[in-house]
Amino acid sequence: MNGENELVVGVIGGLGPEATLDFFGKVLIHSRAKTDQDHIHLVIENNPKTPDRNAAVAGTGMSPGPALARMAMALDRAGVDFIVMACNTAHAFEKDIRAATRKPFISLIDEVADEVRRTYPEARRVGLLAAQGCLDSRIYETAFSRHDIQSLQPEKSSQERFMRLLYRIKAGERGPDIRAGMRQLGEELVAGGADILIAGCTEVPLVLTSGENSKPLVDSTDVLARRCVSYARRLESLPVRLDS
Amino acid sequence: MNGENELVVGVIGGLGPEATLDFFGKVLIHSRAKTDQDHIHLVIENNPKTPDRNAAVAGTGMSPGPALARMAMALDRAGVDFIVMACNTAHAFEKDIRAATRKPFISLIDEVADEVRRTYPEARRVGLLAAQGCLDSRIYETAFSRHDIQSLQPEKSSQERFMRLLYRIKAGERGPDIRAGMRQLGEELVAGGADILIAGCTEVPLVLTSGENSKPLVDSTDVLARRCVSYARRLESLPVRLDS
Repeated sequence: MNGENELVVGVIGGLGPEATLDFFGKVLIHSRAKTDQDHIHLVIENNPKTPDRNAAVAGTGMSPGPALARMAMALDRAGVDFIVMACNTAHAFEKDIRAATRKPFISLIDEVADEVRRTYPEARRVGLLAAQGCLDSRIYETAFSRHDIQSLQPEKSSQERFMRLLYRIKAGERGPDIRAGMRQLGEELVAGGADILIAGCTEVPLVLTSGENSKPLVDSTDVLARRCVSYARRLESLPVRLDS
Repeated sequence: MNGENELVVGVIGGLGPEATLDFFGKVLIHSRAKTDQDHIHLVIENNPKTPDRNAAVAGTGMSPGPALARMAMALDRAGVDFIVMACNTAHAFEKDIRAATRKPFISLIDEVADEVRRTYPEARRVGLLAAQGCLDSRIYETAFSRHDIQSLQPEKSSQERFMRLLYRIKAGERGPDIRAGMRQLGEELVAGGADILIAGCTEVPLVLTSGENSKPLVDSTDVLARRCVSYARRLESLPVRLDS
């Protein structure tokens, strides 16, 4: 592999940090490198001080937009070639990132929708294990609808359980009740008609992996990590945005 | 914790990437955070394309100095407050980093020597599990001598075994023979008179942890991670360099 021709990946992270660590680890796994120099070059902006994304979408907290824009600008100044973000919900503020830099921003949401279409061409309904702000901003619903895929959400009380689990995971909990609770939420979506489950929040794969539910789980962190390696090595061209 | 007052840590990484991932994970553990916002802000420059440090010290390869300097400058431009490097051997090129930026550079080597003096005041001889370039450049020997601690190295053939293990770890190997081989090298240093073992290469703690040898092992990655959290939160002042 010729490092000279490879692209440098900028990562907006810290949302939360454990999810960024998980993303970094998955990039290394997908790189299948035999020497240091075979790995891809990443710059990771891990700013956990970014305001809570769910509170912002709900209108009860400050927007994370300015903090996300500052991370994008810092990555731009550091010399990255394209930017990704290891968080689903924060994509509700994607326009703040795109406004802050001319470097290409690769949407995790679009990559996941594309991955589902490629890997599961028969899928008609996906079940979203995602944070409230991610659901309320309809970012996955919009992306999947372009592929004629319907998005299913948990019932209101189940989604409240999801949010409690999410903040316990962010606090470092990984106990069996958390794992069982997340798996149960997945099964409820399957019972509601989901053909595929989406780990549409980067904290989900910290406690749930594919094979634990009765339908496949697509790990958004893993999809983004794999695509980053392909884009950095120019095995695939960066996606062109239709609306830009 | 008030994020406004905290310092942003810049990390020179990718030397190798698995060691940088290990460092990042240890920072998160030492942060003991209960929310995303409790974590510290890091910017990680993970450039694995940096030329091999051991070949450079041996005079058989290009200097990594310019690549390390470029990482330091990228971190500077990204807005970090101080810089650390998650690699021991590359500290042989520390002057290239210091020349590239006015941001404080915190030496992993000095932090480890200081940690040994604080934690093991009776230690007289440390055994170095470190790469050839780290030994040949005498960076640990110099730092420990300031604390009147003698540095012990493996015999020549043992050091050659160390180097073979090192490159297998960089290639992703973590098998029991690698772990046993590293533990054995530690025991040989203990037999030679070491009171304390130093995991003086960031690949060592990927296969060897304290408690496996008959003397304590000081993990340089863990020391740096812990100190970074303290410095970022201003629980300790950044060390002042005597020669600057």
